[in-house]
Amino acid sequence: MIYFDNAATTRPNARSVERANVYLTEEYFNPSALYRGGFTVSEEIKRAREYLLSRVADPVNFDLTFTSCGTEADNHAVFSCAKRGNAVTTDGEHAAIHASFSELKNRGVEPRFARILEDGRVDEAHLLSLIDEKTTFVSVIHVNNETGAINNIAQLAKKVKAKNPRCVFHSDGVQAFGKIPVYLPKEVDLYSISAHKIGGLKGVGGLIRRKSLALSPYLYGGGQEKGLRSGTENVFGILSFRYAAEDKFSSLVKDAERIKEYRETLASLLDGELFKRLSPVDGTPYILSVSAVGLRGEVLQRMLSDNGLVVGTGSACSSKHRFSRVMTACGYDEKTLDGVLRISFSPETTEDEVKRAATVLNATSKELKIRTK
Amino acid sequence: MIYFDNAATTRPNARSVERANVYLTEEYFNPSALYRGGFTVSEEIKRAREYLLSRVADPVNFDLTFTSCGTEADNHAVFSCAKRGNAVTTDGEHAAIHASFSELKNRGVEPRFARILEDGRVDEAHLLSLIDEKTTFVSVIHVNNETGAINNIAQLAKKVKAKNPRCVFHSDGVQAFGKIPVYLPKEVDLYSISAHKIGGLKGVGGLIRRKSLALSPYLYGGGQEKGLRSGTENVFGILSFRYAAEDKFSSLVKDAERIKEYRETLASLLDGELFKRLSPVDGTPYILSVSAVGLRGEVLQRMLSDNGLVVGTGSACSSKHRFSRVMTACGYDEKTLDGVLRISFSPETTEDEVKRAATVLNATSKELKIRTK
Repeated sequence: MIYFDNAATTRPNARSVERANVYLTEEYFNPSALYRGGFTVSEEIKRAREYLLSRVADPVNFDLTFTSCGTEADNHAVFSCAKRGNAVTTDGEHAAIHASFSELKNRGVEPRFARILEDGRVDEAHLLSLIDEKTTFVSVIHVNNETGAINNIAQLAKKVKAKNPRCVFHSDGVQAFGKIPVYLPKEVDLYSISAHKIGGLKGVGGLIRRKSLALSPYLYGGGQEKGLRSGTENVFGILSFRYAAEDKFSSLVKDAERIKEYRETLASLLDGELFKRLSPVDGTPYILSVSAVGLRGEVLQRMLSDNGLVVGTGSACSSKHRFSRVMTACGYDEKTLDGVLRISFSPETTEDEVKRAATVLNATSKELKIRTK
Repeated sequence: MIYFDNAATTRPNARSVERANVYLTEEYFNPSALYRGGFTVSEEIKRAREYLLSRVADPVNFDLTFTSCGTEADNHAVFSCAKRGNAVTTDGEHAAIHASFSELKNRGVEPRFARILEDGRVDEAHLLSLIDEKTTFVSVIHVNNETGAINNIAQLAKKVKAKNPRCVFHSDGVQAFGKIPVYLPKEVDLYSISAHKIGGLKGVGGLIRRKSLALSPYLYGGGQEKGLRSGTENVFGILSFRYAAEDKFSSLVKDAERIKEYRETLASLLDGELFKRLSPVDGTPYILSVSAVGLRGEVLQRMLSDNGLVVGTGSACSSKHRFSRVMTACGYDEKTLDGVLRISFSPETTEDEVKRAATVLNATSKELKIRTK
């Protein structure tokens, strides 16, 4: 099986799981416990926090709260910061931000959605035009999880703050962290990350925040995570995250370059009569979205899966609607939207897999096209 | 090492982790994915849900939402249901409920706290006297996590509903689920459970709810968990929880009887000159709280840990205050409060461990007493 749905979730990195296994068998203590075992585990969580944080931000100015997933990090950011006035985001967000913004209406905050361009990036001028003196919160996804387009969040955050220095700037970095080089400037206040997109486990994420930003807690209780996120820490998950990240960050730039080549190889091997490329060349190397125009993406996806190639169709998290909300916002016609496939790689992806995948994609699409006629 | 801090967290059940391992190595798919791998995993989560739910409630009338921990389940219950008027709980709650109730004040809801008796059970008459026509939510812990006292939540819920049938009744069942027989009557609307207290992993819990109760979502996003708790499911954690629970429920009554004998053996072997028993005889078999009156509990705890016996001091989750809030509410004097040790067992506890623990407890306390003089 060729697994090319790594943007939905990755296979946990076996070496990282192995290294973290000690927290299931020997160091299984509650990190809040006031004896040696508790201290040891608590210390390891602290080290994991420092390691993960320092990969993408200056630990002097930023801190990291572990959460149970990227969705929790996004929800924490939105509901802690968007408490009055209006809040601005984009039409290209993951459901965790989009649905949270929709909920803001019920809480007396006006959500505003900036248009996106055809490749999935936000329309910067439109975004800035939505920001006024009543804007309390702005959220722009770093890497669009469907098209792979990269928003220049550093630049956007600066422009947003120039317009209204009081509003909080958040970015969902789930598809960026551990995949493309990231370093948070002081204008970015909050940044969401997730473990299971880079070889960690499902059930762990994090919210990076500028220390000077006051954030209200998301879970109340024993006061873990500096009072911001109570609940016994997911020790095994947090340590697996750390080890998986070590693996990714040790060769991040090299991997990204190599995977970009593979992505272009795959794009060039796809039959131009069957497939239309949707992902931009300057997007993340790890996502190639295409459309088998006129075919049904889900049908094709199942046939591909039966033929040993696993790919996604738009975001796995929004699987209940016929067309992807984000792809629709990109402005594609129905025939293109119907045929969307999201092909997503990991650093473990090989050139051979890419070539075999192209063959399967071409043959299966041709087969479906003939059958459909 | 003898590990008697199982109420804080348990060693993950090796057999359960082993059985769940396939979800890290082969079946690592995103449960929302629309291909075979996704369906398989999604189906297994459904089965885990049915299994766990049916152990303590009628699946016709109740459903289970997986959460990231007991604290999240408690927070979800409180903040979804206590939206106006007043909310009533007890002085014997875990911090996850107590701190959430304290937060209610900031949200325009009046929190009311019922007194507890010396053994940790709620003062029923006082609880009922706090409930009026404006009460929207009532929460009573099932098994007190510090003293081990059991509240008769079935009876309490009936009486609460007789006084105000519109208020929602919740119980934190974290120290009860998988340890003592539980079957939820229709008067209990919500019930919190946790995996890592019964051999599962940290990072997984659940909120059982009566189906006819409308609950607002706690996390917004991709719509997982019937829209109540978005975020990619913690597949490995959920399946480990299921397998660990299978182990526990298969011998729950027998284990409880045996551990109750061990608890009484330990209580009888403790030097009456040094220790005062705080836990009631009719409480959970798994918790024996005692006080080494006049000694400092944390100092004793560390010495015991150095001597190979790991025990708790009150709740590990409220380690920031000198005295336990719950034990203080029980009405003990300062000398008793200072010396509190919580000794907590698991079904893996052996008679030999219990006897050796008694020896270590007596000798270490005597040593500290001499040193302190």
